[in-house]
Amino acid sequence: MAVDNVDKVLDLAKRRGLFWPSYEIYGGVGGLYDLGHVGVKVKNRIIRLWRRLFVEENSDFVVEIETPVITPKRVLEASGHVQNFTDPVVECLSCHRVFRADHLVEGALHISAEGLTTSQLTELIKSKGLKCPQCGGELGEARTFNLLFTTNIGPYTGETGYLRPETAQGIFTSFKRVFMSAREKLPLGIAQVGRVARNEISPRQGLLRMREFTIMEMEFFIDPKKPGDPPISKIGKRKLNILLAESKVRGDPPSSFSVEELMTGKLVQSPWMVYWMAIANDFVNKLGIRSENSYFEEKLPQERAHYSSQTFDQLVVIGDEKIELSGHAYRTDYDLSRHMQFSGEDLTVFRRFEEPKLTRVKKVVQLPVRKDKLTAANLTEFLKGKSPEEIEEALKLGVVIGDTPLSTLVKVEEVEEKVSGEKFVPHVIEPSFGVERCLYVATLRAYREIQGRVVLSLPIDIVPYDVAVFPLLGRDDMVREAERIVSMLRAKYDVLYDSSGSIGRRYARIDEIGVPFAITVDGDTLRDGTVTIRDRDSWNQVRVPQATLLEVLEKLFNGEKLESLGMPVKGEL
Amino acid sequence: MAVDNVDKVLDLAKRRGLFWPSYEIYGGVGGLYDLGHVGVKVKNRIIRLWRRLFVEENSDFVVEIETPVITPKRVLEASGHVQNFTDPVVECLSCHRVFRADHLVEGALHISAEGLTTSQLTELIKSKGLKCPQCGGELGEARTFNLLFTTNIGPYTGETGYLRPETAQGIFTSFKRVFMSAREKLPLGIAQVGRVARNEISPRQGLLRMREFTIMEMEFFIDPKKPGDPPISKIGKRKLNILLAESKVRGDPPSSFSVEELMTGKLVQSPWMVYWMAIANDFVNKLGIRSENSYFEEKLPQERAHYSSQTFDQLVVIGDEKIELSGHAYRTDYDLSRHMQFSGEDLTVFRRFEEPKLTRVKKVVQLPVRKDKLTAANLTEFLKGKSPEEIEEALKLGVVIGDTPLSTLVKVEEVEEKVSGEKFVPHVIEPSFGVERCLYVATLRAYREIQGRVVLSLPIDIVPYDVAVFPLLGRDDMVREAERIVSMLRAKYDVLYDSSGSIGRRYARIDEIGVPFAITVDGDTLRDGTVTIRDRDSWNQVRVPQATLLEVLEKLFNGEKLESLGMPVKGEL
Repeated sequence: MAVDNVDKVLDLAKRRGLFWPSYEIYGGVGGLYDLGHVGVKVKNRIIRLWRRLFVEENSDFVVEIETPVITPKRVLEASGHVQNFTDPVVECLSCHRVFRADHLVEGALHISAEGLTTSQLTELIKSKGLKCPQCGGELGEARTFNLLFTTNIGPYTGETGYLRPETAQGIFTSFKRVFMSAREKLPLGIAQVGRVARNEISPRQGLLRMREFTIMEMEFFIDPKKPGDPPISKIGKRKLNILLAESKVRGDPPSSFSVEELMTGKLVQSPWMVYWMAIANDFVNKLGIRSENSYFEEKLPQERAHYSSQTFDQLVVIGDEKIELSGHAYRTDYDLSRHMQFSGEDLTVFRRFEEPKLTRVKKVVQLPVRKDKLTAANLTEFLKGKSPEEIEEALKLGVVIGDTPLSTLVKVEEVEEKVSGEKFVPHVIEPSFGVERCLYVATLRAYREIQGRVVLSLPIDIVPYDVAVFPLLGRDDMVREAERIVSMLRAKYDVLYDSSGSIGRRYARIDEIGVPFAITVDGDTLRDGTVTIRDRDSWNQVRVPQATLLEVLEKLFNGEKLESLGMPVKGEL
Repeated sequence: MAVDNVDKVLDLAKRRGLFWPSYEIYGGVGGLYDLGHVGVKVKNRIIRLWRRLFVEENSDFVVEIETPVITPKRVLEASGHVQNFTDPVVECLSCHRVFRADHLVEGALHISAEGLTTSQLTELIKSKGLKCPQCGGELGEARTFNLLFTTNIGPYTGETGYLRPETAQGIFTSFKRVFMSAREKLPLGIAQVGRVARNEISPRQGLLRMREFTIMEMEFFIDPKKPGDPPISKIGKRKLNILLAESKVRGDPPSSFSVEELMTGKLVQSPWMVYWMAIANDFVNKLGIRSENSYFEEKLPQERAHYSSQTFDQLVVIGDEKIELSGHAYRTDYDLSRHMQFSGEDLTVFRRFEEPKLTRVKKVVQLPVRKDKLTAANLTEFLKGKSPEEIEEALKLGVVIGDTPLSTLVKVEEVEEKVSGEKFVPHVIEPSFGVERCLYVATLRAYREIQGRVVLSLPIDIVPYDVAVFPLLGRDDMVREAERIVSMLRAKYDVLYDSSGSIGRRYARIDEIGVPFAITVDGDTLRDGTVTIRDRDSWNQVRVPQATLLEVLEKLFNGEKLESLGMPVKGEL
């Protein structure tokens, strides 16, 4: 599979209703794409497949929710995105074009610039004398550009909102509500499929770096002390290709690890992370990517997002290109802790001890001193949401409330108590996929040219239609019979019916959009009740009695080959 | 069904994972709601039902696409939204709160203020002495507020974009591409399901006036001269309740009309509009709303959107409230014509004559005069995209190009030509539904209290789970057997498995979220292989052999009653 198929695939995508740049009649907008009538169907199949593997087959501990795209400022301040969700940019001082500073450096110097600071980038640009790639002009200082799309909520100015860059924050902010309504125990996976937007500086052609796309992600909440065992029987035999950070630094290739080995916790921070990576591997296989063409690459500390203690990107290799299909981050308790801090709400979960414990616990006790109203109010405000340990720390630091030292107002003492459990902030593991990337990679992978004709060999789970039904001729009796077959099949399959054009052209059209089987009604059908079934990839045909059609299709959809059904096989004329 | 159930439904919705206000831990944001794990499932079922009725069952002439939420300014200038997508607001001069001016007037004076201009509203506010409902302060002049959420695309300032207020404009701007890749003939319906955003001044509680929601809409493109016949056999027998504009003005109630009567074109501007209204009626029935509780209300000219020549709102009556579930607009050629004008692209479709015609056609001919470069360029620009008729009009008006009269540069002449067809701009009929409104209304309708317990009697098409499976006790053998049944059923049904808590509590929990049937594995199951099936609405149970379970469920899902299966029925203990 060569990457020079890219242009052919983009052309096919436009011609056959997969995808194309949005707002073309107005010259297009970088990073925005439409999905055509075939693209929507494949996309919906990809989402269905993801839901099956990640949500439905784990429905004992995973649920799905939906939260808004529009997010108030405070939420993304808490999450760190307002401060950290940035890319380095550099502007040309003469033509005033803006470039991704790291990409510019990478392109000019052929080094990796991921994770470099703006001053490091500026330094490189100056010292190597890099110029504007468009006009050759002088470049300015590198600075950060925030990738959040900004808007204003409601009729009052200053109510800043953003379009969410990930669905995760909607999950974190509603965690407590979902926890209570869904399961009230951990582990709990909360999945979401939805639109996100990132104001990329320089979107790439195709569906790889888009300004708006659909994400399929899950925040998987665990008790870090008792994470529970993943259902290892489902994934036990798997091997995963992994490029660990240390190997990457040495320039080594990825190695194959067994799931058991990874579960020990030495290489991957949580067994649940391994579990979801194994499921991600299954998912990518079903998109048509063989395991040997994909691997998980551990990010170096400077390459990781601000909330992550360990991240693996799942990469697919196509030709010379490595395309990231998913990210797997150990987000720790970062997000929930930040939202607790910013909202003042308690987002902890209660961990019940096996037996109540008699323990010495710390308590904040207010001292019996007179305070004026303001001091009392300030004190209440100060204490709100703080643990005894935090107050102890504040006492050590000599904190003053108004002008009264905290130490004259409260003390922290230890008392003996029978406690039945303790509160903790759950940790979070996040597998996250871009849907359009999956669509794009699956399409690239499926693209074939056979005898000068295009065939899109999409895997069975993500075809736009399961079956096509054609009357050979436009004669009333054939059309009626074909329509009868269509209604019979529709109960179970997604059926494309087409009666226009020569049969050869109709076969060619469905090959191009990846429909795996075509059923044709011809003269023999009217005489003896048989129909032909044609296979997209081999172009072979068998003739079967209509009465056995459902049974034969079931075999084919279970992976049997047309050629091994024990019926005479006819090749393409 | 009383509307005072609203609070109970909102409480149930929070408690059982249907929906709740977003970002609650930060105090919430008006008009934004999360869907919980039950809400997402019901929503997805509603979308699936809509797709089946509007897209799949009409797949000969309807396709579905997906376009971005982010829309460049030019597109919504062309569509008229930048100018017209506004609400009248009025600000209190003392507390500076902003109110919907029409709602304020309606609330204070108990009249309909829909479609009044801002000066009419200001006049009413002044003359009736209306004050700020919050602080009693003086109100200012009514003005218009644009409901588009504004953002900026990319790193350069001034590249204004909006969040789409409808999915329609993405369909119009890609019409030509879809037309070419999908069907190349009319009628062609292009459907889209997706997020839209409207910056409402005062969002209502619940899912009725949201700032972000999901829309299911279709732009149905027809040749206005030869619209083709809707498949009337599918809808022929229907009757629709309609409140025509003239009846509304007289204060009359809706009347019942047969579809045949409506198809004549006297009351509804296109037979296709009638067709989609009939399908909309079927859809709403399947949400649990009986035909006698809904009707289509024709909008008065001043109530219609700027693009519409006729609009019907589909209203559902619950208690005293009328809730709009869908809108049906005849958008004429307004949108495509405007996009042609603003983009300069040809969005016409070719109508082939049955036989080529010899006709006199008008042509623009440039006169052989010398022009300077600027005039030549200006002339080219002026002629671009204009029809000979438009040029003729310009000549009549004495248009001057630079300082050269147009009449000295071009003339329009008639020539005889053999033409095989003609270009025209398709007309568009649009049925459009809000998904969350459907969810909300269906939930309100389904809410029952039986013997002090809540039962959500959702119709079978939109239940969150088809079946629940319970082991009576947590014993290993029962659990194993229940799990076996779950895996058998999952091939066909969406199954909820629950093994925690008393069986009575488990029944109560699934009643509250509307699961229609529960299968319980008990001691007898282990002895004789039978299980019980319990009905959500009657609480009756029958005991059936496991071997017949699939067969019995199929009957139940086809509408047979548990009580008429011919098996002994046991009531709730």
